[in-house]
Amino acid sequence: MRIAQIAPAWIPIPPKNYGGTESVIYNLVEELVAQGHDVTLFAPGDAKTSAKLVSFFPNSILAKKGDWGMHLHAFYHLQKSIEQVRAQKFDILHTHLSSSTDLYLFPLTASLDIPNVTTLHSNFPFDHHGTDDKAGDADRYYMDWAPCVPLVAISENAREQEKLPVHFVDVVYNGIDMSQFPPPGKKREDYLVWLGRFVPEKGPHLAIEAAKRAQVPLVLAGTIDRYLKSSVNYFHEQIEPQIDNKQIKYIGPVNMKRKVSLLRRAHTFLNPIEWEEPFGMVMVEAMALGCPVISFARGAAPEIVENGKTGFLVQNLDEMVQALPKIDEIDREEPRLHVERNFSAQVMAEKYTQVYKKIIRSTS
Amino acid sequence: MRIAQIAPAWIPIPPKNYGGTESVIYNLVEELVAQGHDVTLFAPGDAKTSAKLVSFFPNSILAKKGDWGMHLHAFYHLQKSIEQVRAQKFDILHTHLSSSTDLYLFPLTASLDIPNVTTLHSNFPFDHHGTDDKAGDADRYYMDWAPCVPLVAISENAREQEKLPVHFVDVVYNGIDMSQFPPPGKKREDYLVWLGRFVPEKGPHLAIEAAKRAQVPLVLAGTIDRYLKSSVNYFHEQIEPQIDNKQIKYIGPVNMKRKVSLLRRAHTFLNPIEWEEPFGMVMVEAMALGCPVISFARGAAPEIVENGKTGFLVQNLDEMVQALPKIDEIDREEPRLHVERNFSAQVMAEKYTQVYKKIIRSTS
Repeated sequence: MRIAQIAPAWIPIPPKNYGGTESVIYNLVEELVAQGHDVTLFAPGDAKTSAKLVSFFPNSILAKKGDWGMHLHAFYHLQKSIEQVRAQKFDILHTHLSSSTDLYLFPLTASLDIPNVTTLHSNFPFDHHGTDDKAGDADRYYMDWAPCVPLVAISENAREQEKLPVHFVDVVYNGIDMSQFPPPGKKREDYLVWLGRFVPEKGPHLAIEAAKRAQVPLVLAGTIDRYLKSSVNYFHEQIEPQIDNKQIKYIGPVNMKRKVSLLRRAHTFLNPIEWEEPFGMVMVEAMALGCPVISFARGAAPEIVENGKTGFLVQNLDEMVQALPKIDEIDREEPRLHVERNFSAQVMAEKYTQVYKKIIRSTS
Repeated sequence: MRIAQIAPAWIPIPPKNYGGTESVIYNLVEELVAQGHDVTLFAPGDAKTSAKLVSFFPNSILAKKGDWGMHLHAFYHLQKSIEQVRAQKFDILHTHLSSSTDLYLFPLTASLDIPNVTTLHSNFPFDHHGTDDKAGDADRYYMDWAPCVPLVAISENAREQEKLPVHFVDVVYNGIDMSQFPPPGKKREDYLVWLGRFVPEKGPHLAIEAAKRAQVPLVLAGTIDRYLKSSVNYFHEQIEPQIDNKQIKYIGPVNMKRKVSLLRRAHTFLNPIEWEEPFGMVMVEAMALGCPVISFARGAAPEIVENGKTGFLVQNLDEMVQALPKIDEIDREEPRLHVERNFSAQVMAEKYTQVYKKIIRSTS
């Protein structure tokens, strides 16, 4: 199949540090190429890929002193990509919605005579602008084109939660590159892990409370968004005072190597989320390494964690604490197998290939 | 002629306070309607117009707590307008470039099968973003479409100064609504006027120096851009200390009524600009009221001021001071006549009609 992938222009493919969408696009493209497809990736010139790379400027916007105000660059990348896709007559075009400027894709792809599909990587609204977390009302304007923009959700929950009249055609889970995650080891230690961005809705304060009640060590890892004042305040007021570097440790952001080492030896990954998270990549990564997950049964968690087999789904903090001793019953091969079967890049690429075929059939 | 005008979506048509482009668009549309054309104006719902108004949201973006970050709104307005123009098959489409998001018009109009022309209201670069006066490099990317985007410059100087490879087809001067500017009166007083935004390149500090050397009173009027720190600092450091409210007065921003009253009785309007200003609307307004202008011979000034007849063009401050006594030789009807003949909305609309015809001929 001749497949065009248009990546957003903000963050390199694959991302150097944070960049969930860019990581998924990287994995998808690599797998599609491995599976024998003829793939062209439209992305800035700093992308690494096995596909043909077409770039309209050398660096991702945020990679070289750029900022989120550079919407003219983002639009230029999308517009030029669409022009080339139109000229080169691909079998299918796959685009990706993850930040506000990606909404420009709605009118661009709606009028395209080439079969196309778009993955919704984040929840609406996309029309956040400025640093003050203000959500504008532009999203509903772009719904004008929504009936002509076939969307893929990254979970059933994401699909169900969406209130705007978008047009979902399927659900495809995000997939990870299994080769980056070694199978479960023998060494297991007794600490719990919470890993993510420090925002209240991801629940690190609840992970701390669970660890304290269970009297088990907890390692916190991840990033504090220094540009978001509420995030900085949350960390300083609710997290920092509880770090004693004995029972409750914070080790900062972790690269892939440290992440693997941390999760592979951990007793349990705690995911006490307080929002409808549309996916939960770190749960998948933990399970790939044999680390069971205890998650609040919200967002996509019930689709990701197999209750009693790869971890536990709980309703509240009490249940989270009660579930901890039961983790010993989990066979640590099970989470790994579960990820291989459902959340590998290979499976993701196969599922997307089916979506592409469905779209092509319905278009012709 | 069936004419479509797409206004930018940021500021109401006509503007309540500042808004040069919006004022010109308002005057142009009113005159085109008066001259019997079938005009449709695409603008937010707060526009006042004699044309048919087509709006995609009720208020100009900046009119209701909006900010310059709301590029999704701006693009939506332009994209929807273009879609309707395409569907309704106008004879000609006239669009307007005055801020960064207007660059989206380049790819939108370049592929349009309807004759179209764009007025360049400001100098490039348009890719300023944020509040730090940083100019990005997106302008040159948009030059990809420039050969297919016929541009009108607002002065010969603007056309000559342009370094980017844009495609100028003509020059049309901005025009004012003569009915808003009563003819020269009998009462003339002995003060000089400087009116504008307080930025160094517009030269209010030089106007002060000229007035002091000539020992003539000077009235300063206009706005301080409170969002631009350099502008605020400039006012506080170089202007404010010289205001004594005897010889040098500052009367703040002025509405149309006060502007007319101020300029109509003034001895001379001083325009000691230190940049290549592409037009100079306030010189035209002063002359319409019979007030002669002494301007540095830069930017479009030599095209606007008729040397020795409607004022004087000078090279420097010394020459400005020396020219002041010669103002008494100017017949105050001359500047008025000069504006009527060259810078009225009527003349502007007639010139644009000729441009439209030329574009239509070259397209068919």
